[in-house]
Amino acid sequence: MAAAAILPELATQVFIPVAAAVGIAFAVLQWVLVSKVRLSPERRADGGAAKSGPSDYLIEEEEGLNDHNVVVKCAEIQSAISEGATSFLFTEYKYVGLFMGIFAILIFLFLGSVEGFSTKSQPCHYSKGKTCKPALANAIFSTVAFVLGAVTSLVSGFLGMKIATYANARTTLEARKGVGKAFIIAFRSGAVMGFLLAASGLLVLYIAINLFGIYYGDDWEGLFEAITGYGLGGSSMALFGRVGGGIYTKAADVGADLVGKVERNIPEDDPRNPAVIADNVGDNVGDIAGMGSDLFGSYAESSCAALVVASISSFGINQEFTPMMYPLLVSSVGIIGCLITTLFATDFFEIKTVNEIEPALKKQLIISTAVMTVGIALVSWLGLPYTFTIFNFGVQKSVQSWQLFLCVAVGLWAGLIIGFVTEYYTSNAYSPVQDVADSCRTGAATNVIFGLALGYKSVIIPIFAIAFSIFLSFSLAAMYGVAVAALGMLSTIATGLAIDAYGPISDNAGGIAEMAGMSHRIRERTDALDAAGNTTAAIGKGFAIGSAALVSLALFGAFVSRAAISTVDVLTPKVFIGLIVGAMLPYWFSAMTMKSVGSAALKMVEEVRRQFNTIPGLMEGTTKPDYATCVKISTDASIKEMIPPGALVMLTPLIVGILFGVETLSGVLAGALVSGVQIAISASNTGGAWDNAKKYIEAGASEHARTLGPKGSDCHKAAVIGDTIGDPLKDTSGPSLNILIKLMAVESLVFAPFFATHGGILFKWF
Amino acid sequence: MAAAAILPELATQVFIPVAAAVGIAFAVLQWVLVSKVRLSPERRADGGAAKSGPSDYLIEEEEGLNDHNVVVKCAEIQSAISEGATSFLFTEYKYVGLFMGIFAILIFLFLGSVEGFSTKSQPCHYSKGKTCKPALANAIFSTVAFVLGAVTSLVSGFLGMKIATYANARTTLEARKGVGKAFIIAFRSGAVMGFLLAASGLLVLYIAINLFGIYYGDDWEGLFEAITGYGLGGSSMALFGRVGGGIYTKAADVGADLVGKVERNIPEDDPRNPAVIADNVGDNVGDIAGMGSDLFGSYAESSCAALVVASISSFGINQEFTPMMYPLLVSSVGIIGCLITTLFATDFFEIKTVNEIEPALKKQLIISTAVMTVGIALVSWLGLPYTFTIFNFGVQKSVQSWQLFLCVAVGLWAGLIIGFVTEYYTSNAYSPVQDVADSCRTGAATNVIFGLALGYKSVIIPIFAIAFSIFLSFSLAAMYGVAVAALGMLSTIATGLAIDAYGPISDNAGGIAEMAGMSHRIRERTDALDAAGNTTAAIGKGFAIGSAALVSLALFGAFVSRAAISTVDVLTPKVFIGLIVGAMLPYWFSAMTMKSVGSAALKMVEEVRRQFNTIPGLMEGTTKPDYATCVKISTDASIKEMIPPGALVMLTPLIVGILFGVETLSGVLAGALVSGVQIAISASNTGGAWDNAKKYIEAGASEHARTLGPKGSDCHKAAVIGDTIGDPLKDTSGPSLNILIKLMAVESLVFAPFFATHGGILFKWF
Repeated sequence: MAAAAILPELATQVFIPVAAAVGIAFAVLQWVLVSKVRLSPERRADGGAAKSGPSDYLIEEEEGLNDHNVVVKCAEIQSAISEGATSFLFTEYKYVGLFMGIFAILIFLFLGSVEGFSTKSQPCHYSKGKTCKPALANAIFSTVAFVLGAVTSLVSGFLGMKIATYANARTTLEARKGVGKAFIIAFRSGAVMGFLLAASGLLVLYIAINLFGIYYGDDWEGLFEAITGYGLGGSSMALFGRVGGGIYTKAADVGADLVGKVERNIPEDDPRNPAVIADNVGDNVGDIAGMGSDLFGSYAESSCAALVVASISSFGINQEFTPMMYPLLVSSVGIIGCLITTLFATDFFEIKTVNEIEPALKKQLIISTAVMTVGIALVSWLGLPYTFTIFNFGVQKSVQSWQLFLCVAVGLWAGLIIGFVTEYYTSNAYSPVQDVADSCRTGAATNVIFGLALGYKSVIIPIFAIAFSIFLSFSLAAMYGVAVAALGMLSTIATGLAIDAYGPISDNAGGIAEMAGMSHRIRERTDALDAAGNTTAAIGKGFAIGSAALVSLALFGAFVSRAAISTVDVLTPKVFIGLIVGAMLPYWFSAMTMKSVGSAALKMVEEVRRQFNTIPGLMEGTTKPDYATCVKISTDASIKEMIPPGALVMLTPLIVGILFGVETLSGVLAGALVSGVQIAISASNTGGAWDNAKKYIEAGASEHARTLGPKGSDCHKAAVIGDTIGDPLKDTSGPSLNILIKLMAVESLVFAPFFATHGGILFKWF
Repeated sequence: MAAAAILPELATQVFIPVAAAVGIAFAVLQWVLVSKVRLSPERRADGGAAKSGPSDYLIEEEEGLNDHNVVVKCAEIQSAISEGATSFLFTEYKYVGLFMGIFAILIFLFLGSVEGFSTKSQPCHYSKGKTCKPALANAIFSTVAFVLGAVTSLVSGFLGMKIATYANARTTLEARKGVGKAFIIAFRSGAVMGFLLAASGLLVLYIAINLFGIYYGDDWEGLFEAITGYGLGGSSMALFGRVGGGIYTKAADVGADLVGKVERNIPEDDPRNPAVIADNVGDNVGDIAGMGSDLFGSYAESSCAALVVASISSFGINQEFTPMMYPLLVSSVGIIGCLITTLFATDFFEIKTVNEIEPALKKQLIISTAVMTVGIALVSWLGLPYTFTIFNFGVQKSVQSWQLFLCVAVGLWAGLIIGFVTEYYTSNAYSPVQDVADSCRTGAATNVIFGLALGYKSVIIPIFAIAFSIFLSFSLAAMYGVAVAALGMLSTIATGLAIDAYGPISDNAGGIAEMAGMSHRIRERTDALDAAGNTTAAIGKGFAIGSAALVSLALFGAFVSRAAISTVDVLTPKVFIGLIVGAMLPYWFSAMTMKSVGSAALKMVEEVRRQFNTIPGLMEGTTKPDYATCVKISTDASIKEMIPPGALVMLTPLIVGILFGVETLSGVLAGALVSGVQIAISASNTGGAWDNAKKYIEAGASEHARTLGPKGSDCHKAAVIGDTIGDPLKDTSGPSLNILIKLMAVESLVFAPFFATHGGILFKWF
């Protein structure tokens, strides 16, 4: 091998944790700034000290804003939402914890059995002549890494939810001072989550590598094999978060809408609707905690996939620490880059009117991508030797550092393209959504037909972008290239999550304004924040899906390398049946999740109807509804309903690997990947488009929109039906598919040594 | 090679055309029987002679049936439908003919250029030491075969439409005598189409092989390469038939329903609705002519795929005629088997009550499968040597005749399983559709969510059945096994088409009864026939999709063999990007076709509304609407809208093959296959379920159904919305996907020599 990397090992050892620490510090700073908005009117503020926490007080200096009653109501609603979300997550964690415990034991047993729980060291596979640690050590450390990943994901999701429920009412209150102030509060809160998650994911991974390294010494092969458990843990947690949270939020949303908007003709988020608190809780557990653990999973998995391939490439074989840590260096630079980007939204410019919101969020995407292109170039120049080799299914392929830069950059830019295409198809500023809105003239049926067609069409460009990224990165640097392309797309994760979390926070803020009976002007401001949030949520899903596609392919490649197969030939019966069955799995999974939402929503509808019919004075607003029962219905339904789809995803790789072996499993992974990514994109864009078509009619901002409206017209009713159908598509089944494809791949990777040794028993018998 | 086949060559040469002739004779006999129902009341019948043709007279012997006025009306309506259908098909053929001409020239030029239009003979690829005909001959004969296939498909579709429009009014009139009589007329007419198509497809193929053989002599490699053009011709025609017909029928149907049922609250097929004739024409051009050419395409393609693989296996290399003709022998036996099966429906038993219709149709499936299992065993025993070898991507694999029997049988039985699963998910006798109907309680949104989930779920078992068939046949006899498995599924094509064509004929019969103002009792009978027809239509689509999956794989295998690549490794960038882009194509295609239906339906809605608003006395029934304008709108829209999706399918293999080469094209084919089959199944079952959920509520046959009804209730309105959304899914985009996956595969196969020689220029340049 030629020259080493410019950055010395010590500098790398310092830079990564420092970047993570900076990220965490920045998150805390944002939180402090948010906490300055006080949420209690009882006492006058007794000073400017930033005493944070929900027990703080609101300083109300501006005239006309001193309606104590409203502030009290906001605080009450916020605490109801926060309690509901916390109680749901604790219930969810209880069940998931049990499952994770069992799964951890399985990992240990399966991986330990590869060499019959022998404690003897063995010759390495790739570093010829060296001795590597026993499979039993791999089993133990993989299990530990799995638990670490799961716990990190859990904590990230939980903290994200906490800050979101902390910020929602504060955003509402700030909306009284102007849309710009409210925007900054919502955005800062999103940033808390984004930076916390990106930094803690990086830090825990870094610490784990260093701690595991104490035992593994120079056996990097074993070390990074064990580290893959981190990705599996993160992703398993994400599965339950996404599916459980997705069912929760949409059961409540659909149930609330069906009775409230359609039958009783009361507005969204009306406090008389018994399901309204459950609906707002849902935004936090589904879109915040679920999305957070999803993207954390992608991040952990792409890092693991890159590391495991690097460990059997020249970086690993020659024990070059800095280039080995290249994936972590990219993420570290990402934190710094996103930090600079955030300042553009919160400090360098200020939003004054409603029209500036969406451009400001879009600018975030562009700025972060531009900044990161420079950052990646820098890190590729400093962190990599000029020439090195990458393991490519049995052969070592020579790669140069600028080629690796191209791999990361293509992923980064593909993410931006996917983001913009998603925006084009889901924002009501452009013709696709306007056409869908227009089709409501002839009723709900044409609305649905046009919406489905829009979703299908929106797949085309993102798939070409993904295909191009894959082709370039795969050709230049094999599976390592694909893994770092995924990391490139995820290097702006802090910004991505910030604008993504911004959406549900604004949505909640609007809900709180409505429930607290605040003025129409405030509601208009929060609605504008929310409409932009709808589009950014779709963009966030686009990123999540795009990165999931790249990550799964990288994991798939790592699995194949580790399972010691060198080709996955479609023209063998074993692989082909895997491919076609794999392509079917996303449909099976979607059938389960959609039906779950449907059934849970029906239960919710019955309860809401029951309350309207049996509680006297509810419709008149003189009695309060029983919010808690609705929260309980959503909680119970989602916990119960997340098990079958969860089991499908978790068990498929195990069953296929054990019964049919690694070739069929390869087919299943490839099939699920290429089929799932299409459904995921089309489902989330269809749903986003319907939502915004409805908002387009409601807002009536153009001549055309006004001919379709107003609220309550036949057109609007048709649009509401589309919106309701889109809810489970865009927030439950669609985004959960990311996890399906990633999780099956990372699980296969972790269990690869077991399948390669003991798998395929059906074919062995016959 | 060991012993030869038991059946001598001469017997084979006699048996195949005789079987085809028997099939044609049987079709003519059925037609004669149908024509005995006379459709003109002016003169009393002057004798019992079976003078056939529309100029015949109706014998009205039973009392109370002599309402001349009704018969005149029926004849009028029938002739309007028949004229509309004929005029549409002629317009369609004009455009398609132009396209076919251009494409035929392309085939000639591309294939001729493989060896620079040289007229010199060349050494054979597979039969070492022999001399084969020049590539130019291949170009000429492929072009001729292409034209033959297209013309056969066209004639089959046209005759099917003719008999269907000939039979519809006769079925209505027979319904006056009882449901059993009407059933037999509808079923016999379906059988005319089924047998005509199966027999003529076989006969033309047989004659082409013998005529081409005069030139090719013992160069069977070249002969059967050229014959593949037959499959391409059949399938190209089918593409335009399915897409054009599908857009036609659903634009009219959706347009008629949106104004008639939803806005004006008049029943389906009400003569006051201006789009009602267009709607009935649509059933004939879409479901009859389109389905006919689709299945003919599958039949021609699977035969071609089997023949081309056989020609480079021991059958071809050793010039064993009888085993070489095994695919045609299977089809010949199929005609005989289906003939016996048909007698069970028309002669051995008689239907007396409405409840017996669906079981009678289901029995057809079971009987034909059982009979054919024996037939295939016989033909495998007589027509094959005990041991032989099959070409398997570069190596010759030894196969025994009973193994080939298993391949054909597994396809046959998989077809039956797919049929029954489809029935389970789309018939309102079972819980899935009843659950969907029940979800209408909470409105259209839950109906759509449950319907989509049902469609996704209905994919699971068919995919397992297809995967199992592929695994078994692929393992036993490589791609030849897969091709004959497809042929096995299609061996009951005559029966399949008969019960399939029965559906639209009954649908039309019901329409005519309504339009002619016949009594409620008659309408009830035709409705019962139609409801059974809905389920059989879904079963027919299931068969079409299942066989398309097997056929495409076989064609794909033949393409790979002919393009001289030996593995299609997912883990190469070229193949993987093909796979993911291929999996996207069905979405792109569906987006186009669904949007086309939506836009065309909007135009229809405007016209129908215009007529209701501007023609005085229309709503009161005193003035006739302007049917012709609606027919013209459907015709123009479908001709215009079929071009972009048609171009997508036809151009993709050419562009990918020329620019990216055969590896990427392999990926595209595999991706489109595994992704398209899922969407096709789920789309057609979702649509079928919605349609029957609506019928379930309308019929009100159970306690549960009555709680949801009656017609016009909120539940029923929600069900109508679902039905309307399902229309383009089940009759346009879903079934067209079969053709997408088959056609791209057969086109690649035909152009394989060109791509292998001149393709992949992008990679050659960079």
